[in-house]
Amino acid sequence: MGRSASGRWDLGLDDMNFPTTVKIVEVGPRDGLQNESMVVSTEDKVRFINMLTATGLSVVEVTSFVSPKWVPQLADAAEVFRQIDLREGVRYPVLTPNSRGLERALESGAKEVAFFTAASETFNKKNLNMSVRESLAEIREMAATGKSKGLWMRGYVSTAFYCPYQGRVAPDKIRPIVEELLDFGIDEISIGDTIGWATPGEVTELTEALRDTLPLEKWAYHFHDTRGTALANVLMAMSHGIHIFDSSAGGLGGCPFAPGAAGNLATEDFVYMLNGMGIATGVDMDKLVDASRFIGSKLGRALLGKYLGSHRQ
Amino acid sequence: MGRSASGRWDLGLDDMNFPTTVKIVEVGPRDGLQNESMVVSTEDKVRFINMLTATGLSVVEVTSFVSPKWVPQLADAAEVFRQIDLREGVRYPVLTPNSRGLERALESGAKEVAFFTAASETFNKKNLNMSVRESLAEIREMAATGKSKGLWMRGYVSTAFYCPYQGRVAPDKIRPIVEELLDFGIDEISIGDTIGWATPGEVTELTEALRDTLPLEKWAYHFHDTRGTALANVLMAMSHGIHIFDSSAGGLGGCPFAPGAAGNLATEDFVYMLNGMGIATGVDMDKLVDASRFIGSKLGRALLGKYLGSHRQ
Repeated sequence: MGRSASGRWDLGLDDMNFPTTVKIVEVGPRDGLQNESMVVSTEDKVRFINMLTATGLSVVEVTSFVSPKWVPQLADAAEVFRQIDLREGVRYPVLTPNSRGLERALESGAKEVAFFTAASETFNKKNLNMSVRESLAEIREMAATGKSKGLWMRGYVSTAFYCPYQGRVAPDKIRPIVEELLDFGIDEISIGDTIGWATPGEVTELTEALRDTLPLEKWAYHFHDTRGTALANVLMAMSHGIHIFDSSAGGLGGCPFAPGAAGNLATEDFVYMLNGMGIATGVDMDKLVDASRFIGSKLGRALLGKYLGSHRQ
Repeated sequence: MGRSASGRWDLGLDDMNFPTTVKIVEVGPRDGLQNESMVVSTEDKVRFINMLTATGLSVVEVTSFVSPKWVPQLADAAEVFRQIDLREGVRYPVLTPNSRGLERALESGAKEVAFFTAASETFNKKNLNMSVRESLAEIREMAATGKSKGLWMRGYVSTAFYCPYQGRVAPDKIRPIVEELLDFGIDEISIGDTIGWATPGEVTELTEALRDTLPLEKWAYHFHDTRGTALANVLMAMSHGIHIFDSSAGGLGGCPFAPGAAGNLATEDFVYMLNGMGIATGVDMDKLVDASRFIGSKLGRALLGKYLGSHRQ
């Protein structure tokens, strides 16, 4: 990091490469709800998703075709997908953790899918019951199917900064995984700070390590706000021109008083910051707040997003 | 802000002039507690402040010599100041809203004081019952006294970004106030986002407006985290070399479910981010967490700081 002596006093922030537009990938219905213990009805999930796309969000991750044994909250994946209104110009990716999930997603009519691996062996083992190698082999197969069906495909690389079991994950571990995913024909890669421990220091390191590998138009970051650093991380990433970020309505997914509360970056806080910086998102804040309040009322608790909290009625 | 076409792809925020060391001004015992409705005993305040200075913090704002009619929580200002341990090398500023407060502070033996004005007329009127002009005249007199007694003096310019009554405050309104305070011999000026509405966009504007007026060694920013942007604002400010920031242990001062919850930036979240960026603060995180847990237990509620929340036992 350039500091004092080497700092460039002649540079202002207008020399930075901030984007003019940011694409938000709303992951509340999937990454958010899968971490909520109170099960939401299919009807309420459908209504929540329809409210989200009514805000102007252009990508809403709908659900995960995961085994209901693993995530009971998402047992109704097929029903939810079938019942939502599909708006023109909006992407509705669904997570498919394995080939069985992909089959179910295709049967339901999904046109956009997301695959998942972790950079950390232990996390992958505990979360997917596969080694990183095995999970990449699974993704290779699913991506071949996806390509043949003309699907738009997203890839998650989780624990890309820290692993709860193994600690710091070196940036060099991420690059080969990203290279493979690009080889498979994945359209967008979301690099995840799954447990929310990253700071702008680690964002700089990883961004520099991936700069020559991952094109900006395929590069998303996925930050959790466990330690309050998510927006600062986004700011650092945006200064490098990165312009696709995942976030979750109301900060869904973390519980206020649970140890290790680990909600996603709240979409409202993110949109609020971008509005203040003159960066366009196309999202209507009032409608977004309505969507978050709606799902909060179904979960029976106040969500953690700060903007939302400061607007609570 | 320069964008895409003009952007320098080889540069990120991290090429900017980040400081190697940040000075944290801990304002929890004053700005934090004065916004808490549950009154804390003198003994507990003293213990809290002693715990804070034991963390390695070099500046802890102790209290405000405000009229007890206005802020009952701080009615014991003199007692608190007399009972705390004064450590070598630590500054213990006390807020003195007027000459009567300054007298009381001097009687108690204070060697560091802080004065307060707002950039917004309406806020100043409601908060100090004076116009901005009148409050600057009061500060001029207090500063003359302070100088003659060899006090170290801090000046707050609050509502420097937004006013809850008047909305956006133009950067041009701030510069003349800062110039006057510097003329009065004020040693450090804390520019406050009192209601926590600023984003990095407004931070850039104000920083550019003050760059030729306020020397970096006298320049502090004071962010509240009402809408989650405080750490991103700090990051943007640090990229300009600013290295003095106010924060509050545990994010003290905001209530989790109150409308307009407006706690300060939490010191733990701030220290965590700086640690991750390799920027030194001299603060021991474990001791800081202990201090916040202690005061949280006295307030009977979980504090809002995210780092603290993720470490709750």
